Amino acid sequence: MDTRKRQLALQRAARATLPRHGLHAPAARVVPQAQAPLPNPACVPGAGRSCRHALTDVALNAALHAYEQTVRGRFDAIEDVLRTLSAWQHERDFVERAQALAQQRLDFEWPLSALENAWVAGVDMAALHAHAMFETIRRCVALAEQDGAPWRSRLPVQPQVLRACGVHTLDVSPCADGRLQGVLPFVLRTVPAEAVVVKAYAGALFDVELDVQDWTQRELERLSGLMDEGQTLDYLKVAIYHFCSSQPRHEGCAAHGSDDARAVAGAIERLQALRVAVDNTFGDGAAPLVMLIGVDTDLDAIRIHLPDARGQLHADRFLDAATLYRETLGMAAADARRHLHEAVAAHVRELGGVLGRMPGDDGLARLAQIWLEANLSQIEFVIEHHGGRYAVVGHDEHFVCVGDALPPLQLRNQYYHAHLDTVEEGTADLDVGVKIFTGLNLRRGLALPVLVHFTYSSRVPGARERAVARGQRVLAAIRARYRHWDERGLLHGRVAVSDRHGRETVALIDAPAAVAGH
Amino acid sequence: MDTRKRQLALQRAARATLPRHGLHAPAARVVPQAQAPLPNPACVPGAGRSCRHALTDVALNAALHAYEQTVRGRFDAIEDVLRTLSAWQHERDFVERAQALAQQRLDFEWPLSALENAWVAGVDMAALHAHAMFETIRRCVALAEQDGAPWRSRLPVQPQVLRACGVHTLDVSPCADGRLQGVLPFVLRTVPAEAVVVKAYAGALFDVELDVQDWTQRELERLSGLMDEGQTLDYLKVAIYHFCSSQPRHEGCAAHGSDDARAVAGAIERLQALRVAVDNTFGDGAAPLVMLIGVDTDLDAIRIHLPDARGQLHADRFLDAATLYRETLGMAAADARRHLHEAVAAHVRELGGVLGRMPGDDGLARLAQIWLEANLSQIEFVIEHHGGRYAVVGHDEHFVCVGDALPPLQLRNQYYHAHLDTVEEGTADLDVGVKIFTGLNLRRGLALPVLVHFTYSSRVPGARERAVARGQRVLAAIRARYRHWDERGLLHGRVAVSDRHGRETVALIDAPAAVAGH
Repeated sequence: MDTRKRQLALQRAARATLPRHGLHAPAARVVPQAQAPLPNPACVPGAGRSCRHALTDVALNAALHAYEQTVRGRFDAIEDVLRTLSAWQHERDFVERAQALAQQRLDFEWPLSALENAWVAGVDMAALHAHAMFETIRRCVALAEQDGAPWRSRLPVQPQVLRACGVHTLDVSPCADGRLQGVLPFVLRTVPAEAVVVKAYAGALFDVELDVQDWTQRELERLSGLMDEGQTLDYLKVAIYHFCSSQPRHEGCAAHGSDDARAVAGAIERLQALRVAVDNTFGDGAAPLVMLIGVDTDLDAIRIHLPDARGQLHADRFLDAATLYRETLGMAAADARRHLHEAVAAHVRELGGVLGRMPGDDGLARLAQIWLEANLSQIEFVIEHHGGRYAVVGHDEHFVCVGDALPPLQLRNQYYHAHLDTVEEGTADLDVGVKIFTGLNLRRGLALPVLVHFTYSSRVPGARERAVARGQRVLAAIRARYRHWDERGLLHGRVAVSDRHGRETVALIDAPAAVAGH
Repeated sequence: MDTRKRQLALQRAARATLPRHGLHAPAARVVPQAQAPLPNPACVPGAGRSCRHALTDVALNAALHAYEQTVRGRFDAIEDVLRTLSAWQHERDFVERAQALAQQRLDFEWPLSALENAWVAGVDMAALHAHAMFETIRRCVALAEQDGAPWRSRLPVQPQVLRACGVHTLDVSPCADGRLQGVLPFVLRTVPAEAVVVKAYAGALFDVELDVQDWTQRELERLSGLMDEGQTLDYLKVAIYHFCSSQPRHEGCAAHGSDDARAVAGAIERLQALRVAVDNTFGDGAAPLVMLIGVDTDLDAIRIHLPDARGQLHADRFLDAATLYRETLGMAAADARRHLHEAVAAHVRELGGVLGRMPGDDGLARLAQIWLEANLSQIEFVIEHHGGRYAVVGHDEHFVCVGDALPPLQLRNQYYHAHLDTVEEGTADLDVGVKIFTGLNLRRGLALPVLVHFTYSSRVPGARERAVARGQRVLAAIRARYRHWDERGLLHGRVAVSDRHGRETVALIDAPAAVAGH
């Protein structure tokens, strides 16, 4: 470690044991046990070894780190500004100073109505906090193109790479957990694209019927010749479970009671069900390709479970990126890559082959190798920028996203994502999210910010209006379900819609009436 | 009219003005205005004319009438039995007599718990009524094969007829109104089949996104060669609005405020949106065929709006079956058929052609002619068996069906059908149904019986369990929404599921716990 890094590591250690920004911080925002941090099993520095892997894309890591700092900085500034406003709220020139500070630090204005009566009863801090959250989301979306420019095209897994591995569509269902919300660009170094769909569910327990529909839609596009080069390619469904190596029984997957075996078994069952469903409906051999990935959310190191030639996934057979990192550290790039290749090949032999459209197709094995290599950079990213293991191993999300994922904002612990069409169906996923925010926000008097986001197809007449109506209906149902928070002004929701074909992105719909108070 | 018919007409007139079965009947169960009934415009008997049309399928009408009498008889017997029980409930041998009567008249037993404490506080009539309703539904489903045997294969519109008109799948969205629940076998003389899908919505305002999905699924089956002879055929979407010629402003479509023009415009807008959505998504020319049908629910006479060659539907251009009946009454069958053919041909010329897969395809025109001819029999059915105009022109449903339609039970005013996946999305449709039953049942102390019915595909692993879970979730949401009725024991619900591929049909799921009281 150089001096700068040592300083950063020290700062991080201090953050982990001391309240952040000098505040009383809630339990979930600090490392729950302040004992000596667990070492990263991928790399123990010292003993003449450094943790610089030959296959690491150093420039890409730097770009992603800058992005992470920038986006997190925008959200972290909110609390900082609010603490200052708290100190100023009874001053005579409060309104002017509050607006100036917001303009300067947060790049927006407060609604006047939220400030001008502060001298009477103080400001509604929860309302300001929620307003700032939505404005910051809006800002991040507006800047997404610019923010992502330094790294997007540098990510190793672009749509053409997927196509070269035989995949026309990548349909990913991570767990709804915020720690997985950066899984595409960071953990898998895969570019968000139209051919990449993310639908997060608590416990990665995705909706088989909906997936059959999504598969059907893409399959028809394929057969209709609407996909360039797609005719001979396949649909790949990936479920992503997660576990926490430092506190496996407490910070694993909440939906499975932090029982990793259950999380793996649950995901395998859904993936098999999807294959059987499509085969039974459209004939043997029609089923999509499947793959199971596990993420150690402490380290961002992945495990890849490849399907054997019959499409079966095995809970206890996988390729482990942390192990491969350790095994190849210190090797030259070509040697390390050869080692990866051999490890994947040996694993495929052990499985007796890998699932493909035709016997002998090894697209999935090649993709596994690409993802494993890409993940080595992310392991090193965590080593270099997060002291080998994230300081906050648990939840640290800023808001809840309900409905469809937010492609412009993919960052660990940025938001909890419950993929749903109705609260009636998605209650379980939502309740987990609200429980998390009870610890993060509600107990200290800050609101639960809920962004209800739906995509629509601008090719379907009336679809935008229906997406907006759906958003408003879902938001009303959320208010009704969590009435005890809503009535106390502690639930702030906004509706946003995005066109699937790119004409508008996360457009916030209604006026921020919530700030005016309840 | 012969003597028997005159007698029946008199009985009907009596039923219309006197309370039925000597009871106090709710307003909705009688003809709201007891003035002289409007004549049937299709046929005014007398002046040397009889109302026996040469194209009427007399045997089919007789079979359908017997079916109607049988099924209605089973439901009508419920109230009759309950009135007897009411008189007996404080007798010492009440339980035995009640069971014997139920066995004899209704073919089931009461749950003992519902009877044995009757001597204390009387029986819970609402609970018995609901129990009887569900048992009668179960009985009708069990006997559906047998009940339908005399007429099913005699219906003129069989799947092969649809195929001969260029249609592989017929997707029908009538209004949820109970008066349209017999539209397939009675009004359109079309056999319920796997290739015929019914999804009812208040106001026939069907879900465009869902229909695009359904179209996609069938289109993929077509392109995958899973449909016999289906390769060159098309998907036909039909929306069915309705109006009431005797009381247009009061007994038209409730969802459109009995405004017929709005009902027509609403349906046309959805049909066009569906075409545009599919064309925009899968390329010009991919869109399904569409047709609009109107039903005069007094007479069961239809109007057919054919799409012109560009697929446009016209609110004010249609073929009117009542007019055609009148014009062809007294003609020989061949002449009448030629007249129909010419009327359709003239109409198509006026439109400048009709929509088809290729220019010149006239499958839809041929289907229109077949439906018009089939409807002549239904017009005569109403003339012969219902005095020319239904005695109850308004609502007279026995229960509410929520979720997917019930193919084994297709009869006018048998149930109100709200097609939905969640209460959250289907609130508007449900509220209309509950409002109707407030008049029919709730105001006189009888319960609202709700059958929540979902179909699943036995080809999809876990689908049955999910359908049951969905049913239970929807039922719970209904209980929550109409808590004021539920808490008073006036909402009785059951969940049923059917396999789309026929392995089980309307299987009632949970124990009838509701009867045990609330």
